Amino acid sequence: MDFLVQINVRLPPDTPPERREELVAAEAVRARELAAKGAIFRLWRMPGRWSNVGIWRAADATELHDAISSLPLYPWLDVEVTPLARHPNDPGPL
Amino acid sequence: MDFLVQINVRLPPDTPPERREELVAAEAVRARELAAKGAIFRLWRMPGRWSNVGIWRAADATELHDAISSLPLYPWLDVEVTPLARHPNDPGPL
Amino acid sequence: MDFLVQINVRLPPDTPPERREELVAAEAVRARELAAKGAIFRLWRMPGRWSNVGIWRAADATELHDAISSLPLYPWLDVEVTPLARHPNDPGPL
Amino acid sequence: MDFLVQINVRLPPDTPPERREELVAAEAVRARELAAKGAIFRLWRMPGRWSNVGIWRAADATELHDAISSLPLYPWLDVEVTPLARHPNDPGPL
Amino acid sequence: MDFLVQINVRLPPDTPPERREELVAAEAVRARELAAKGAIFRLWRMPGRWSNVGIWRAADATELHDAISSLPLYPWLDVEVTPLARHPNDPGPL
Amino acid sequence: MDFLVQINVRLPPDTPPERREELVAAEAVRARELAAKGAIFRLWRMPGRWSNVGIWRAADATELHDAISSLPLYPWLDVEVTPLARHPNDPGPL
Amino acid sequence: MDFLVQINVRLPPDTPPERREELVAAEAVRARELAAKGAIFRLWRMPGRWSNVGIWRAADATELHDAISSLPLYPWLDVEVTPLARHPNDPGPL
Amino acid sequence: MDFLVQINVRLPPDTPPERREELVAAEAVRARELAAKGAIFRLWRMPGRWSNVGIWRAADATELHDAISSLPLYPWLDVEVTPLARHPNDPGPL
Amino acid sequence: MDFLVQINVRLPPDTPPERREELVAAEAVRARELAAKGAIFRLWRMPGRWSNVGIWRAADATELHDAISSLPLYPWLDVEVTPLARHPNDPGPL
Amino acid sequence: MDFLVQINVRLPPDTPPERREELVAAEAVRARELAAKGAIFRLWRMPGRWSNVGIWRAADATELHDAISSLPLYPWLDVEVTPLARHPNDPGPL
Repeated sequence: MDFLVQINVRLPPDTPPERREELVAAEAVRARELAAKGAIFRLWRMPGRWSNVGIWRAADATELHDAISSLPLYPWLDVEVTPLARHPNDPGPL
Repeated sequence: MDFLVQINVRLPPDTPPERREELVAAEAVRARELAAKGAIFRLWRMPGRWSNVGIWRAADATELHDAISSLPLYPWLDVEVTPLARHPNDPGPL
Repeated sequence: MDFLVQINVRLPPDTPPERREELVAAEAVRARELAAKGAIFRLWRMPGRWSNVGIWRAADATELHDAISSLPLYPWLDVEVTPLARHPNDPGPL
Repeated sequence: MDFLVQINVRLPPDTPPERREELVAAEAVRARELAAKGAIFRLWRMPGRWSNVGIWRAADATELHDAISSLPLYPWLDVEVTPLARHPNDPGPL
Repeated sequence: MDFLVQINVRLPPDTPPERREELVAAEAVRARELAAKGAIFRLWRMPGRWSNVGIWRAADATELHDAISSLPLYPWLDVEVTPLARHPNDPGPL
Repeated sequence: MDFLVQINVRLPPDTPPERREELVAAEAVRARELAAKGAIFRLWRMPGRWSNVGIWRAADATELHDAISSLPLYPWLDVEVTPLARHPNDPGPL
Repeated sequence: MDFLVQINVRLPPDTPPERREELVAAEAVRARELAAKGAIFRLWRMPGRWSNVGIWRAADATELHDAISSLPLYPWLDVEVTPLARHPNDPGPL
Repeated sequence: MDFLVQINVRLPPDTPPERREELVAAEAVRARELAAKGAIFRLWRMPGRWSNVGIWRAADATELHDAISSLPLYPWLDVEVTPLARHPNDPGPL
Repeated sequence: MDFLVQINVRLPPDTPPERREELVAAEAVRARELAAKGAIFRLWRMPGRWSNVGIWRAADATELHDAISSLPLYPWLDVEVTPLARHPNDPGPL
Repeated sequence: MDFLVQINVRLPPDTPPERREELVAAEAVRARELAAKGAIFRLWRMPGRWSNVGIWRAADATELHDAISSLPLYPWLDVEVTPLARHPNDPGPL
C-alpha cells in the first residue's frame, strides 16, 4: 500500500554544526536502507524549506510507523501521512 | 520538473447521471493522453473522497496549467499545486 | 488494518422528505452489510451534527474506498480518513 | 459514555533519554491500569507521529479529565476530546 | 453533565418570510420546552450573527443529540459541542 | 454584560513544582475573589487540557480586562473573549 | 463601549441590479441614521472586497446586535465582533 | 505604492459559455486599460486554478479599490490585498 | 491613508520585571510621539490579551513600517496590517 | 520560470545585536548577488513584520531551492513558495 508522507524537519537552528551534520549523514544512510527495502519509493524536497514529500510503501500503518520512526531525525520530524488508494487513471509504476 | 498536484472534484451531487458519466469517461481519456505525453507520472485516489493526488511533470508552471486545464472536469476542480525539487535521498525514477 | 473515518453528511436541508428517508433507510441497510463483512467495526454519532466517527477495517486504502463509496449517501459525504497503527498500550479487541 | 480522545505528546526532543524512558514506562503502566478500569477502551497510534487516537469511557467529562490527567506524561500532552453519541448503525461492542 | 453548545443558523436569506417566521416561532416554543426540562440551562446571542452560545445539560452525548436534533431549525444548524468538566474554582450554580 | 471567556494556561511543563503550586493556589484565591465580586459567574474545565471556559460579567471590556489581568497566572494565559448579547429564548438566571 | 466590527456582504452576484441598488441605497440611509445616533463611529472599506471595518459604539452587546441587525443587508452579512477596552496609550477621541 | 493582489474567480461552472466568454473578453480589455494607466504592474496565473497573483500600483487603498472594482468580473472575485513597503535589498524596477 | 493594525506582544513571561517595565515605559513614550506626529490615530486593547487594535495613518506602507518598527517592543511584536479605503457611509473624522 | 516567495524571518529577538547585524549585512550581500544573477527579480517588505514578498526566477524548483538556501539567514527562514504561470493579461516585464 502507498502513502503520501510530508515531513518537516524541526531541528533547532542553533544545533551545533557537527551534531547537525552527523544527524543528516545518518539520515541519508537510513533513507538509502529504507529505499533499498522498498519502504521509500520516491522523495522530493519542497523548495525553500527543510521539508520533503515522499511516496512510501508499507504493508500497513504499523509497518509505515516503524519505517518512519527508524529515521535518526525522527524526534525532530513533524510528519503528515495520507493513505493512497489505486486510481483507475494511474499510468502505473512503469 | 515535477509537481505534486492535489485535486478535489466539486461536481454537484445532483448532476444528471448521464452527464456525470460522460464527463468521467472523457476525463479518463484525457488522463490517458496526458500520461502518454508524460504530463501525468503517477495518480492515486484519496480514500473516501472524489479527490486524487498526483505527480505531474511539465517544463514549467505555464505548461502544467495548460495540462490541468485541458481536463474535461477542469471547471469543477479545486486544485492545489506544490513545486518539487530534487532530494539527495530520492531513490530515483528506477 | 484499522482506519479512523470521520463523515459529515451534506445532503441539502431542502431535499424532499421521502427522498431523504429513502436514502437514510438504504444507508442503514448498506451499513449493516458493511458491518457484517467486518468493514465497519464501530460507529458513533457526533452530537448535534449529521456526522459520525467510525473505526473501519480494510486490507488497504483501495478496499476502504470501495467500502465507503458503496454507501447510498456517498455523493453527499465529506469524508476524512486517518490510517491507524497498533499502539503498544492498546487493551486490544477483547 | 464514550469519548474520542486524540493525544499529541509534546515532550521536547532534547529530554534526557533516561527521563524519557522512565516517563514512557510509567505511561504504559498507567495506561494498563486505565484499560483494566475500563477507562481506555481502545488505543491506536497515528503513523509517523508521537500521537494516538483512543476511545475512552467515563461517566462524564469530569471523570474523563481525572483519567487523562493521571497519565505521567500529562504535562506534555496536547489533548482534543470529542464526545460520542450512540449511532443507530453501530455494529455494537460485540 | 454540562456542554457548551455553539450554534450558527444557516437558513438561506431568501427563505420566504412566512416560512422563516413559522420556523423561528416553533424554535422558541421548543427552546422553552427544553429549558423547562432542564436541557437548556442558559442561552446567549452572539452579536451581529444569527448564532448563539448555550450551556446545555444532558445525561450524556446521546441525550444531548436528541435534545438538539428536536429543534425545528435543526436541518439548518451548524452545531459545535464542547464537553464541560467541573472546575474547582467554579462559583457554582448558586 | 456577559462574556464567554476561554482560557488556555501555557505555564511551561518544566516549571518547578513549588512555583507551580504557589501560582495555582494564588489563582484559586483570586478566582474566589472575582466570583465574590460577581466578575466570574460560572467556570468549567475543558477535559484533558489545562483550559477553562467561563461566563464572566463586567460593565464593559475595560473592566473585564482588569479582572482577567488580575489573575496571578495572567502572563501565561492565552485568552479568547466573546461578547454575549441577551437571547429571547434564554431561560434566564433563575 | 467600543467594538471593532468586520462585515462581509454575501449578497449573491446574480441578485437583480434593481434589488441590489435598492438594498445598497437603504443600507446607506440606515448607516447615516446609526452614525447620527452615535452607533457607528467610523467605517472603512477593505480594498477589493465588499467588506468593511468599523468602530461601533453601544452600551453592551445586546444594543450592538440591535444596531447591526437593523441594517437592510443584515440577512446577507457575515459579521465578526471584537470587544474593545481602553488602551493607556490611546491618543483619545480628540 | 505597490500592493500584492491575489484574486480567485468564483464564476459558477454552469455559467452559459457565451456569457462567460463575454466576461473574460471584457476583463482582458479592462486589464489592458489598467495596465496602460499603471494600475496593474505585473500579473501571473496560479497553475491549475482560475486565480492570479498581481503587483498593483495605486496612490492609496481607495484608488486600488476603484481599480479592482472596475473589473467586469468583480462581483465574482474573491480578492486578498497585501500592502507592500520598500525593501532595502530590492533590485529595483530596472 | 489609514491602516488597521493588530498587534500581539510576545515578550516571554519570564522576562525580568525591571526589563519588562523599562520596555513598557519606553513603548508608552514612543506611542505618544507617534500619536503626536499623527501616525497613531486611535488605539484599543483587546480584553484579556497583551494585544491591541489601532488605526494608524501613513503616506504609504513604507512610512507605516518605519513607524511600527520604531517601537521599543518591535522585536517581540506579531503585527497584522490591513489597508483601509474610504467608505461612502463613513461618518467621517468629525 | 517565476515564483512568488513569501519569507518570514524567525531569528529569536534575544539574538546578540552584533550577531544579528552580521547576519543582516551578510544577507544583504547575498541578496545583491542573487539579484545580479537574476534569481531575485523584485523584493518588498510586509509592513510591521520581519517578512518579505519577492518574485524569484529559476529554471526549476531545484535551482530555486539552491538560491534560497544560500541565504545566510536560511536556518531561521519560514518560506512559502508559489509557482507562477504566464497570464494572458500580464503587461509584461517592460
